[in-house]
Amino acid sequence: MIAFHAVDVIKAKRDGEVLTDGQIRSFLEAYTAGAIAEEQAAALLMAIFWRGMTADELTTWTDAMVASGERLDLSTVGRPTVDKHSTGGVGDKVSLPLVAIVAACGAAVPQLSGRGLGHTGGTLDKMESIPGWRAALPPDEMTRVLQDVGGVICAAGPRLAPADRKLYALRDVTGTVESIPLIASSIMSKKIAEGTQALVLDVKVGTGAFMSDLGQARALAETMVQLGQANGVRTSALITAMDTPLGRAVGNAVEVEESLDVLRGEGPEDLVTITHALAREMLALAGVDADADAVRHDGRAMATWRAMVVAQGGDPDATLPRATDYLAVRAPESGYVTRLDARAVGNAVWRLGAGRARKEDPVSKTAGIWCRAKPGEWVEEGQPVMELAIDDPARVPAALDALTGAFDIGPEPPPPRDLIIDYIHF
Amino acid sequence: MIAFHAVDVIKAKRDGEVLTDGQIRSFLEAYTAGAIAEEQAAALLMAIFWRGMTADELTTWTDAMVASGERLDLSTVGRPTVDKHSTGGVGDKVSLPLVAIVAACGAAVPQLSGRGLGHTGGTLDKMESIPGWRAALPPDEMTRVLQDVGGVICAAGPRLAPADRKLYALRDVTGTVESIPLIASSIMSKKIAEGTQALVLDVKVGTGAFMSDLGQARALAETMVQLGQANGVRTSALITAMDTPLGRAVGNAVEVEESLDVLRGEGPEDLVTITHALAREMLALAGVDADADAVRHDGRAMATWRAMVVAQGGDPDATLPRATDYLAVRAPESGYVTRLDARAVGNAVWRLGAGRARKEDPVSKTAGIWCRAKPGEWVEEGQPVMELAIDDPARVPAALDALTGAFDIGPEPPPPRDLIIDYIHF
Repeated sequence: MIAFHAVDVIKAKRDGEVLTDGQIRSFLEAYTAGAIAEEQAAALLMAIFWRGMTADELTTWTDAMVASGERLDLSTVGRPTVDKHSTGGVGDKVSLPLVAIVAACGAAVPQLSGRGLGHTGGTLDKMESIPGWRAALPPDEMTRVLQDVGGVICAAGPRLAPADRKLYALRDVTGTVESIPLIASSIMSKKIAEGTQALVLDVKVGTGAFMSDLGQARALAETMVQLGQANGVRTSALITAMDTPLGRAVGNAVEVEESLDVLRGEGPEDLVTITHALAREMLALAGVDADADAVRHDGRAMATWRAMVVAQGGDPDATLPRATDYLAVRAPESGYVTRLDARAVGNAVWRLGAGRARKEDPVSKTAGIWCRAKPGEWVEEGQPVMELAIDDPARVPAALDALTGAFDIGPEPPPPRDLIIDYIHF
Repeated sequence: MIAFHAVDVIKAKRDGEVLTDGQIRSFLEAYTAGAIAEEQAAALLMAIFWRGMTADELTTWTDAMVASGERLDLSTVGRPTVDKHSTGGVGDKVSLPLVAIVAACGAAVPQLSGRGLGHTGGTLDKMESIPGWRAALPPDEMTRVLQDVGGVICAAGPRLAPADRKLYALRDVTGTVESIPLIASSIMSKKIAEGTQALVLDVKVGTGAFMSDLGQARALAETMVQLGQANGVRTSALITAMDTPLGRAVGNAVEVEESLDVLRGEGPEDLVTITHALAREMLALAGVDADADAVRHDGRAMATWRAMVVAQGGDPDATLPRATDYLAVRAPESGYVTRLDARAVGNAVWRLGAGRARKEDPVSKTAGIWCRAKPGEWVEEGQPVMELAIDDPARVPAALDALTGAFDIGPEPPPPRDLIIDYIHF
């Protein structure tokens, strides 16, 4: 008799019932169109936070989020498409060299990225420290760059999963962010709408990650891999360690600098290890038989990078902006660095101005931290453990405050740790 | 450092933590002032639905709701004040004769009432079928009527517990109505703000009540009695049966008619029993030693009723409006009525136009149902079990539809039932 009542959907989820396809699709369609109030969506999100969703509910929910907007058609690109998504970490600049490496190997990488929030950075913020580079690219332009260059890093347009755009903002203010089905559907709806044929997820776990519990990280990874497969995207996931910053650079321009090292065949070992592992998995899913290490050493990855930068108005030969002031945080005694906390470093970089509290805030291109000694490395008393790149000296006290207790030094090196903790595939 | 973040309060409740006094008071104060968005309040309500509240949290929450507006001062009334609140049922017109009876006994009854919603009627809707009677009364006028007459039935003003007004509307659209702490605080905040010294609660249980589970009804009653006591209002509760309509009349003008029978010393036995039980408890809490039955038989209760009606512009001698069409629902066979379902009758009366789906809807004064045979009574085949009083013939099919399966007839009378199931006091 009565076609559809939002409050009945809320009550059903509240009472632990399984929502029907029709309930999910009607709710999300009406919500995206503005016909369901924010307070009703908020109540449903909290009920989902509480009760969870079955695999079938989540598949429908994600599909309805994709259907709220357009799904890109990359069939004209002429290469197998494959993308990567990281749940976010400190010093995680992997996307920058990775897109160029995989594109240089012959796959097409349509990387639609976001901006940083809180203690984790965003790929677009980092790229924008390259003089002239622009994040916005119309869909037809994006397709053309993928055809010509093979890799693109750009902002998702407003017509891609608009339901997610609204839900993401709502979750932020209603305490419903940390829910596995809501996280998984948010990430996967955008990646499915982006039109990629394959996807490798980098689910980070540790103090600097969104999730510090391995069981939770594994559940999220499995949920996302299932969702990808159910929606026709070949998907797998690596679970990787995020207890200490990845590489040595944390910030925006400083992370581009370090990415260029990787593209030159250099770069810190942990960053190179993760980049290669992800590249190998992406190429396998794309069915491309190529050597990621070779393109990094013979200049092809760098050539692809330069073409990518040029295609979006950037100058690959321009000098990256640099901070004017530097401040060293020194070792109070000699010994091995046994711990350098990712979350603390991420918060300090945020305080220095390279991160943002709200998505409207501007970010500093040059502020950042160089980790001069990482866990397992020896420092002499008085040597720098970290070097702060400073854009606004007034921000230094807050950054130093965030670094209180950020590292430990001891007589023995810490036990070796696994960078790659698990591999989830079906 | 940071004064107050609504999302931190939501997360704390979401995670099962106990909210501090400051969190509760800040949240409700900011919400009432419009400084917290509806979606944030919706998320908190669902988290409360999920996690509940401790007795201390609920006392603070209720006190903050009272503090969101003004608390009436009835100290100038010159009589002990005592009120009654029913959680709502079908044919529950008890307030009408009860206020007059208790006032005639010497107490003052400041009954701030509401309107009907769904299958349950509202006291104000019933009173408004009296020609000329007006529900709105300014506070000073209300105090004067209490001094002069002893009883008043009127609408709660907009300055009484405004937080409840907002939360009540929000709960309705967010699936967060059926939560014991939210129900208890909504009812008690208004009664505490109304300024009564004592309060008797009539918590109904059964198919026609808000709660059909006795354990839930008892938990609600205990919670409200505790809240009243914690806020300086002497409070007790009766738990009463609501499986079949109370009395024979269900609607608006028809319920006033039946109330007048009670005030004349007549009326159906179940209605008189409940009215007397509540009157005795109210007089006991008010410390007034008087005989409720005597004032009902010697005309004093009726005289008080007439004075109450006149004080609010009504004409106690005017003929009540009557329906023009009637339709009998007849017994298909001879036997005892073994069941007459309160919910079905309430829904049918609503469909006939006497109830409303949304609080803005108008209601019919004359539509209603007379229950001609109640459970335990014998009917011959073809005798009316119910008589529908019809205002708009187009509504009859929906009402008859709601009455499908509403009663049973059998060879044996049903077992006797307790009208008054429990008594909660501390």
